[in-house]
Amino acid sequence: MVTFVDVPLMRQWVGEHGAAALIRDLVPYLEADFRRWPEFDKVARVASHSPVGVIELMPIADAASYGFKYVNGHPGNPSRGLQTVTAFGMLADVASGYPVLLAEMTILTALRTASTSAMAARHLARPGSRVLGLIGAGSQAEFQILGMRDVVGIDTVRAWDTDPAALDKLERHADSLGVELVRARSAADAAEGADIITTCTADKAYATVLTDAMVAPGVHLNAIGGDCPGKTELDAALVRRSSVFVEYEPQTRVEGEIQQVAADHPVTELWRVLTGGAPGRESEADVTLFDSVGFALEDFTALRFLLDRVGGTAHAGSVDLIADPADPKDLFSLVAAPRVAWRLA
Amino acid sequence: MVTFVDVPLMRQWVGEHGAAALIRDLVPYLEADFRRWPEFDKVARVASHSPVGVIELMPIADAASYGFKYVNGHPGNPSRGLQTVTAFGMLADVASGYPVLLAEMTILTALRTASTSAMAARHLARPGSRVLGLIGAGSQAEFQILGMRDVVGIDTVRAWDTDPAALDKLERHADSLGVELVRARSAADAAEGADIITTCTADKAYATVLTDAMVAPGVHLNAIGGDCPGKTELDAALVRRSSVFVEYEPQTRVEGEIQQVAADHPVTELWRVLTGGAPGRESEADVTLFDSVGFALEDFTALRFLLDRVGGTAHAGSVDLIADPADPKDLFSLVAAPRVAWRLA
Repeated sequence: MVTFVDVPLMRQWVGEHGAAALIRDLVPYLEADFRRWPEFDKVARVASHSPVGVIELMPIADAASYGFKYVNGHPGNPSRGLQTVTAFGMLADVASGYPVLLAEMTILTALRTASTSAMAARHLARPGSRVLGLIGAGSQAEFQILGMRDVVGIDTVRAWDTDPAALDKLERHADSLGVELVRARSAADAAEGADIITTCTADKAYATVLTDAMVAPGVHLNAIGGDCPGKTELDAALVRRSSVFVEYEPQTRVEGEIQQVAADHPVTELWRVLTGGAPGRESEADVTLFDSVGFALEDFTALRFLLDRVGGTAHAGSVDLIADPADPKDLFSLVAAPRVAWRLA
Repeated sequence: MVTFVDVPLMRQWVGEHGAAALIRDLVPYLEADFRRWPEFDKVARVASHSPVGVIELMPIADAASYGFKYVNGHPGNPSRGLQTVTAFGMLADVASGYPVLLAEMTILTALRTASTSAMAARHLARPGSRVLGLIGAGSQAEFQILGMRDVVGIDTVRAWDTDPAALDKLERHADSLGVELVRARSAADAAEGADIITTCTADKAYATVLTDAMVAPGVHLNAIGGDCPGKTELDAALVRRSSVFVEYEPQTRVEGEIQQVAADHPVTELWRVLTGGAPGRESEADVTLFDSVGFALEDFTALRFLLDRVGGTAHAGSVDLIADPADPKDLFSLVAAPRVAWRLA
């Protein structure tokens, strides 16, 4: 039997602990795994593109565990009452190849994305950052705010979305968010006075939701919505002006904001900042850009965290996914017709 | 909710219809999909190798459906009471990215591998083939025999395995197999007089379970156990002597028997034989080799067949894998703490 966390169990678990606490507790797990980056067998995710979206598989392994996530991205889904991004994932045992954990990851991805953004901001934003400019108030918004609040110390959020209903939704959650929420009148207004600007929009297009002129010196940019070939959010001039930090360079060159600039534009993999192998922010006036596309390691870490927390508890169900005959070479015994009973003479 | 066929449901389904009938009925599905080969978005599978085995993801899509399989290969597993190969897989809707079907695929893979082998043999073996030499009597053996029996017309099987217990197991299933089963004394003895020789051994090594001298003119070789870099079964001289047919050339060059020969050694993709775009067997004396490594399309087809057959029946369960908030942009509502009730004045 494989441990299984389905949607109801995930909701119960997150509801019980609170999204904010889990986002915060996941950060040290992420930092630990990013610091041992060279130990992982890494590959750019495998994407299948269609005119309306993308479906991706994101595998990764260390010597003990293998993980992968299935995730889609369909910007037109909300207009049909469906979510832009849904996901599920798995951990398996490298020694046997047997799955260990199957889990819904739509909710878990929102947590890990918030934790990853917060982790990067803690290492790259100016100390004392208090104001977040949030451009895009979709599914990720509340999770992003909670991570930036508890991990970085943000207390004010200036939010903007082209869809007023998305801002209304954010306002409805104001009590749960514990920050001063400012309804901005434009993207430029959201960016005004921000220490950190998060862009999390969904259009599969070369969009410019943030121009160079909107960004003051010293800002940390957390660009998480540009994550596909042909899907970006930032002005190319803004990218060129920033110190760029990425998760896994070979993937981000194809999918990130940096697809807009030269293939040899200098970037630093974030793990090197965490290990002290590369500098992060170098001055108060630096614009730092975390060009985040989402990398398989973050999902692996989230699944590892989930299993540590729910394994053996009431939040862990199970599923019979692996056929397991008594004689491992006798798979046929599982489906063979029942034996004819001995006939009496 | 995602339709889910777990191990008990799969066993019930196969038990009710019989493995032989399902293997036979899957063949026209495979032929139909192989004939529309250019419609698929194909990629070599993504493998994660460890010293003891491999874990692979095998994605593929057409304009309507996306499918993938998770599968491992761990030759040392049976010595620990575990299976060499386990698998599960999924179909999803390309238009929305939402999963549609999740299924165990350890049993389903055995069916599809038998169907694929039988389909290839029907197109490549000499008409009237009746004797199968079977080298390797592990998990695949009975399924292979049933496919070759019902699709190709095999009535005699000469079986060999270095593990006598595997041959004992095969003998115990003799009543279910409906063929004359001959216990060979060696690989050469199994190959003696065979019209078709199937090699399905599991060692992750450059093994030579079949030498050139063992193979008579006119034989069709169905080589299914060499399916990893560094894992082959045939004498290189035998490969060079044969007309080689493969599933997806870019994958087979890396994983198949042809990794032993020159990178430009001529091969024919099997789908081209099915569409009439390339010749198959060209003479009675030809040795034809189906250098089969297993390709994602076969799993896609098997999942499509499964869904057609079990959808809406008692063999289809369901699983709550996709978080689905009423407002698609309000994922947070699924995990937010309950609202504080209005306080009375």
